[in-house]
This record gives sequence, C-alpha cells and structure tokens, in this order.
Amino acid sequence: MSKYQSLKEEVYEANLEIPRQKLAIYTFGNVSGIDRKEGVIGIKPSGVAYDDLKPDDIVIVDFDNQIVEGTMRPSSDTKTHVLLYQHFDTIGGICHTHSAYAVAWAQAMRSIPNLGTTHADHLVASIPVTEVMSDEMIERDYELETGHQILNVFRDQGLSPQEVEMVLVACHGPFAWGKSAAKAVYNATVMEELARMAYLTLTINPNTPPIKQSLIDKHYFRKHGKNAYYGQN
Amino acid sequence: MSKYQSLKEEVYEANLEIPRQKLAIYTFGNVSGIDRKEGVIGIKPSGVAYDDLKPDDIVIVDFDNQIVEGTMRPSSDTKTHVLLYQHFDTIGGICHTHSAYAVAWAQAMRSIPNLGTTHADHLVASIPVTEVMSDEMIERDYELETGHQILNVFRDQGLSPQEVEMVLVACHGPFAWGKSAAKAVYNATVMEELARMAYLTLTINPNTPPIKQSLIDKHYFRKHGKNAYYGQN
Amino acid sequence: MSKYQSLKEEVYEANLEIPRQKLAIYTFGNVSGIDRKEGVIGIKPSGVAYDDLKPDDIVIVDFDNQIVEGTMRPSSDTKTHVLLYQHFDTIGGICHTHSAYAVAWAQAMRSIPNLGTTHADHLVASIPVTEVMSDEMIERDYELETGHQILNVFRDQGLSPQEVEMVLVACHGPFAWGKSAAKAVYNATVMEELARMAYLTLTINPNTPPIKQSLIDKHYFRKHGKNAYYGQN
Amino acid sequence: MSKYQSLKEEVYEANLEIPRQKLAIYTFGNVSGIDRKEGVIGIKPSGVAYDDLKPDDIVIVDFDNQIVEGTMRPSSDTKTHVLLYQHFDTIGGICHTHSAYAVAWAQAMRSIPNLGTTHADHLVASIPVTEVMSDEMIERDYELETGHQILNVFRDQGLSPQEVEMVLVACHGPFAWGKSAAKAVYNATVMEELARMAYLTLTINPNTPPIKQSLIDKHYFRKHGKNAYYGQN
Repeated sequence: MSKYQSLKEEVYEANLEIPRQKLAIYTFGNVSGIDRKEGVIGIKPSGVAYDDLKPDDIVIVDFDNQIVEGTMRPSSDTKTHVLLYQHFDTIGGICHTHSAYAVAWAQAMRSIPNLGTTHADHLVASIPVTEVMSDEMIERDYELETGHQILNVFRDQGLSPQEVEMVLVACHGPFAWGKSAAKAVYNATVMEELARMAYLTLTINPNTPPIKQSLIDKHYFRKHGKNAYYGQN
Repeated sequence: MSKYQSLKEEVYEANLEIPRQKLAIYTFGNVSGIDRKEGVIGIKPSGVAYDDLKPDDIVIVDFDNQIVEGTMRPSSDTKTHVLLYQHFDTIGGICHTHSAYAVAWAQAMRSIPNLGTTHADHLVASIPVTEVMSDEMIERDYELETGHQILNVFRDQGLSPQEVEMVLVACHGPFAWGKSAAKAVYNATVMEELARMAYLTLTINPNTPPIKQSLIDKHYFRKHGKNAYYGQN
Repeated sequence: MSKYQSLKEEVYEANLEIPRQKLAIYTFGNVSGIDRKEGVIGIKPSGVAYDDLKPDDIVIVDFDNQIVEGTMRPSSDTKTHVLLYQHFDTIGGICHTHSAYAVAWAQAMRSIPNLGTTHADHLVASIPVTEVMSDEMIERDYELETGHQILNVFRDQGLSPQEVEMVLVACHGPFAWGKSAAKAVYNATVMEELARMAYLTLTINPNTPPIKQSLIDKHYFRKHGKNAYYGQN
Repeated sequence: MSKYQSLKEEVYEANLEIPRQKLAIYTFGNVSGIDRKEGVIGIKPSGVAYDDLKPDDIVIVDFDNQIVEGTMRPSSDTKTHVLLYQHFDTIGGICHTHSAYAVAWAQAMRSIPNLGTTHADHLVASIPVTEVMSDEMIERDYELETGHQILNVFRDQGLSPQEVEMVLVACHGPFAWGKSAAKAVYNATVMEELARMAYLTLTINPNTPPIKQSLIDKHYFRKHGKNAYYGQN
C-alpha cells in the first residue's frame, strides 16, 4: 500500500464532487491536495473522465513537478497548482473548473462584485480577476505563468489567500482553494453560486451597488475569526 | 421520548425540503416550527449539512432564545425567527433560504412586482423588500434587527402577515412563513418561482405593468377566504 | 369497474407528465381528456398534488360542467376546458400549466414569434396571446371567460385549433391541446421549449426577424398534412 | 447477425447520449455513424423516441440515400448527413440536435465568438453560422441543400472540418461531427456549453472582445496536433 494512499483517496473523492456539483462537463476541471510533511501533491490525471477515475489514478508529484508515484500523466494544469501551493503556504487543496457562470465573468474580464450576504458570508472583497496574460508569458511556460497571474493579482490588490479563497483567471475560468481538497471544491461551488447570483442581480438592476462595509463585516466575521458564532465549533 | 418529538419531526422534515426543492446549496437556509402551547420553537442547528441532519438535532428554544432541549447550537438566525413568531402570532413555521432568483431581487433591492396570476394566486401585493439595515442596527443585535427590518416593512406598507407570507431582506435574501413549517417551505418555493417568472418577464419586456386589480382579486380570492373554491375544502 | 376507466387512466397518466417534464411546481397545472362518444371529459381534481393523485381521483364531468362520476371537486379551470372542447371539436385533450418561460411571455403580453425551424416544425404562426380580460368578463364567470378569451384570439386572427395547438392567456399562462391528453402535454412541453428558445434568441439579438415563409412551410409540411415524410407513418 | 451490427450498436449508443446530455426533448435530434469500408452509414429512424429505440432500429443507408438494411424510415435529415460524409472524408459520426443555446445563436443568425479557453480548447475559429437558405434551395431538395449550406460556409471561410467540428445552420440549429458517432455527440455537447458561456458572457459585457490569438493557439495546440500534451496519449 502506498504511503500516499490517504492523499490519493482525499483527492479522488474531491474530484468526484466536480460532476456531482455540476461544475464541469466531461473532463474539464481538476482537484489537487497536498501532503506538506511529505512535500508532495496528489492531482487528477490529465483528460480522464470522472466516471473512469480510480483512487490509484491520482498522480503524486513533487514541488519540481516531477512524478513521484503514478502511471498516468498528471493534469496539464499541474504547474499552476504547484506554484500556488508554494506561495500560498496555508492551503491544503486546489480546485479548477469550467463552471459556466464563473467562466462567463472570467471571459467578460470582470471581477464579481460583493452584492449581498451570501457573498459576504465567504469573503469580504470582490472575487478578483487576473490581468490578461501577455504574449511573452504565454510563450514562456503557460501553466506556470497562469499561477503567476494569480499571485500577481493577489499581490497588486493586497489580498490574503486565507481570506479570499477564489479567483478568476481572465479569458479562462475559476480557481478555488481551501484547507483541504474537499474545501477547495466547496469554495468552487460557492463561487459558481455567487457568480450566478451576481449575474441575475445585475440583469435586474445594472446599477446595483456593492453592499455596505458594515454588513460585509458582520456576515464575514460571524463565520470567520475568533468571534465567529456560526456552526458548531 | 421528548415531549417535543412531533415538533422536531415536523421541523426536520421541513428542512429536508430545502435541498429537495433546490432552494439552497450546502447548509444555506433553515426552517423552524413552533409549539405555541408549550411556548417553544424547534429550529435547525447552525451549519449542519442537510444530509447529516437527524430529527434529534433540531434545537428547541424558548421565546428568550434560550435552549430548552438539544445539544447543538441553534441556527445563527434564531433571533430573527423568534421575533417574527412573537409579532406574527398566527404563523406556525418560518423558512429562510438563499434561493438564487429571490436573492437576486433582494440584492437589487427591488420588490417583486405582481405580474400575473401565478403571483396573484398567492398574494395580492408585490413581494416586499425591506430597507437596507442601518449601521446602528447592524452593530446592536444583527439577527434580532433583521427581524425588525421585516416588521418595519410590514408596518410601513400596512401588510398583513397572513395575507403576505413572504419578504425579501435587502442585500440578503428571502424569508417565508405559513401555518406550519411545511407550508413555510412551500411559500419559499413559490417565492423563488415568482422571482424567476418576474425576472424572465421583465427581460422580455422591461415595461411590463403589474396586472389589473380585478384579476388579482379574482385569483387571490378563489384560493383564499370564505368564498374560495380552489382545492378540496 | 367504471365505464370511464380508460379515460381516467389516460388523463391520470397525462397529468403525471406535468411534473416529469417540469412544467409546474406543486399542484399548478392540469390535464383533461374527452370521450366524445359518451359526451364526458375527465379532468384532474382541484389542488391535489401529483404525487398523491390516483386514477380514480380523475373527475368525470359533462358539457354542463356537472360531475358525472367522482368524489372530488374538479379543477377550478374546468369551465375553460369544457368550452374549448365544445368549440374545438377535433381535440381530444387539453393541458394547462404554469411553465416559467411560457408564463413570462404571457405576463409580458407578447405572442411568441416564429424564429426558427423548431417552432416551424410545430406551427406556422406565432404562438398567439389573448387580450387582457375586461373587468366585466372577470366578474361574470371567470373560468368560462378564459375560454372565450382563447376563442376570441383564434377568431380574430383566423387561426385553426388543428394547426395552432397552443396559446398564451395574457397575464396568466399557457394552454395547449391535441388529439389526446398525452399529445396535449407534449404540446405544452414543446411550447415551453419554444418560449425558452425565443427568449434566448431575442436576448442575443433583440432585432431577430421571424424566419421566412418558405422555410416555415417546408418544416411544417414535412411533418404535417398529406405530404408529410417525417416519422414512421 | 447483421454485418453492420457494430455500426448499429455504436450509432444506437450515441443517440442515447442526446437525452442523457439533455441536448433535445422528445425525438428532436439524431446521430449517424459511417462504415467507410462498407460504404454505408447507420442513422436513427425518423420520429422514434429515444426510450423506444433499439439497436436494430438503426437504419443502414448507402451514399445514394437508399436503405440497405432496416425496416424503418431513416431520419428526415439523412441527405444532410450523407452529403457531409461525402465531402468531409475524415469524419466518422455526425450529430444534429435542437439544444436550446445553440438554437438561439442559430436563430439569431450569429456565429458564436471565441471568448475564452473553453472554446479555444476545441477550436480556433468562431463557431460558424451558415447563410439563410434561398427559396430556390428550399424548394429543390431541402435536406440535401442543408448539407450544401454547411459546405458553403466552410468553403467561403476556408475552414477545415477536422479543425472545426461544429456549425450552426441559420434559423435551424447545430450540427457537430467527429472521428466517431460518440465523438460527434461529445462535440454537440461542447458546442451547447460554449453557446451558453458566450450567451452569459455577452449579457455581462456586450462588448467583450474575442480572446487574443496567442492564447487561442496555446490552448488549441496543447490539445491538438503533434505537440499536444493534454490527456494520456
């Protein structure tokens, strides 16, 4: 039995949530998880249908993007995942999908504004959108540079990856992360719902303003931080 | 066996209707019911997934928001529910969700106009939307003040909670109620459908007027009041 | 065993198609069928949930809207159905729903334009919308007058109920009919799909013109009339 | 056992994907496959519901549109399929549906612009839309001319059927093809998703530009051609 068995199981289960939550059709989308003690990540193999996926298909790679265990080629987005794990050092899982409403905002190159408490329950800021990638970045090392696009928008806007666990890559689609692979998919599902709600809201009233800061803070901090009183802990 | 067993079962069953009717993802949303003779309400515990919920998880609280029976923390929205039960003294159940179309109208801070007989079958008025909460109210006692927001819009517009069993809290989302917990979820489902129909109608023709009063009255009173002739009673 | 057993079974089965095709929530919508030889129609009882419906619940009424067999109150829309059967003497079933896209067009008081071959496969004309009912008609005999609204728009636009098997009642919603109760539900489902396609098309391009007459005729007549060559007969 | 048994099974299975992927209601849509060695195509019989379809119902026709094996009438769109197989000599399957978003773009007579990487993963170009058919073509041999409409737009825009595996027929709907019948349905499903994403994107920002050429090329060529590195081969 592999020493990475529990990582493989966790990542396998999280990947199956993508079709269950209808976040992508066919093989679009992938989830990874990390074992920071062992210094490896587990990630979906490239182009495999969710129905065909087995726990042992999960590919174990190291921080140099080298395969440590597994017979299949890892997701073509592996370098993006690895870079994020290196720089966002508290996260335990990453989920990339092509869910339709989030993709639509990414294609429109618009951040998703914070229009209500469903959004504020999860993050204070708008869901950020990266810059469009330069031709130089595309030619250099595309998937690695996708990770840099994300790092750049977090740096430029002074965002914390612990407080903002989701981002739109311009012209491409959503990435989300969290404490575990399962939490990353949860955040990807929430992002799609927030993208849909914002879409509907702005169709009803294109001039809807963001909600006031006091209401954002109230909702965010009743769920997060030391004074949180939502949930059972 | 608990003396509140039947209340717990009723509230448990009503909560399971939220995911069945696709009114919310994950743990968003909650239903409560009341036993007015015993002076207690039963409500969903905070942050528990519907799939994991058991009848005995339903928390019994009194009108002072104190736990009477149950080992879990009640919904963070408990004070909103309790206030509504105190002031709307004929209602038997309350349902709060984050269903997407109703949330969109709440975020756009627009009441849902009465555009057709599906709406008029259930209520005469527009579905009201509260004022945005003031900073003072947010800081004071947020969930209690959410209840006051609802009471205020009913008072200001002269609405009866028996005739209008649904409301939008601005920047937040829908609350519905009814004679029982099950009826509250029914009204939450109807509200989402009315929100969707109004959205689609105003996309086709942004200048669609409300339907005429005579048609509203005809549909409302064939289903409600002493001359009703819809249904089997 | 009732002499109307097969009519009851047919109408029962057709009613169950309403939730299967997602044409309405809860008890919204009803289907009827007719036995012209016996001079009776079978119709859904008023306000009964589809899940609870049994074949023997189908109410048998005559052309005077009197109950011939059955213990429940028939649909509140019974007089509308009966009037249509009296005047559209070739139809065998009628279906009324509150499907969301068709309702939206009805609430917007707009006929559904013929924008493509999916529409032309089923009818040549736009799907007509009635006039808004006058106060006098509403007060007189509402459900009977709903039938007259439909007859009026067919008379005014010179439409044939054999060629146009669907209509929108303004501010209310869709009615469809056909050779049988099952065919009536089929047409109600097609109408909802056409309503959705027209909605999407006009959002993409609000100035989309109706399709040309030669293309309408080609599609309609390859499916209908003596030179039809679609299907197996 | 028929010498075309495996072709029938392949085409049968591919047709069942149409309702599974929700690409059409009722009998709308059809899939065919080809056995180029035997010079025959297998195609869905006309007007048969997917639930009733059996492998032996698949009709085998030759390049002169004559039935070689089968007791049912082939799809009324058979001539369109045959013409495409004759001119696009590398394709192995064709799928025609009435999926709603693709139909909406076809009815709006607009090509679907390439707005993001989900699109670029599958094709470089916009999804083309044909000209509206002339009255002469409609009268001559409608289904054959539908094939010519498709050939014309590929010729006029210099498109390759191996690189662009999908098209919109104006005022009608989508056709897709691929190396096999299964791949044709895959492409029809992808086209519907791209149509939906483009619809949502342009609702958010009607002035969204197409994505840059370097990004298109990166995504297309990581999945296609000799330097592809997506998937397991």
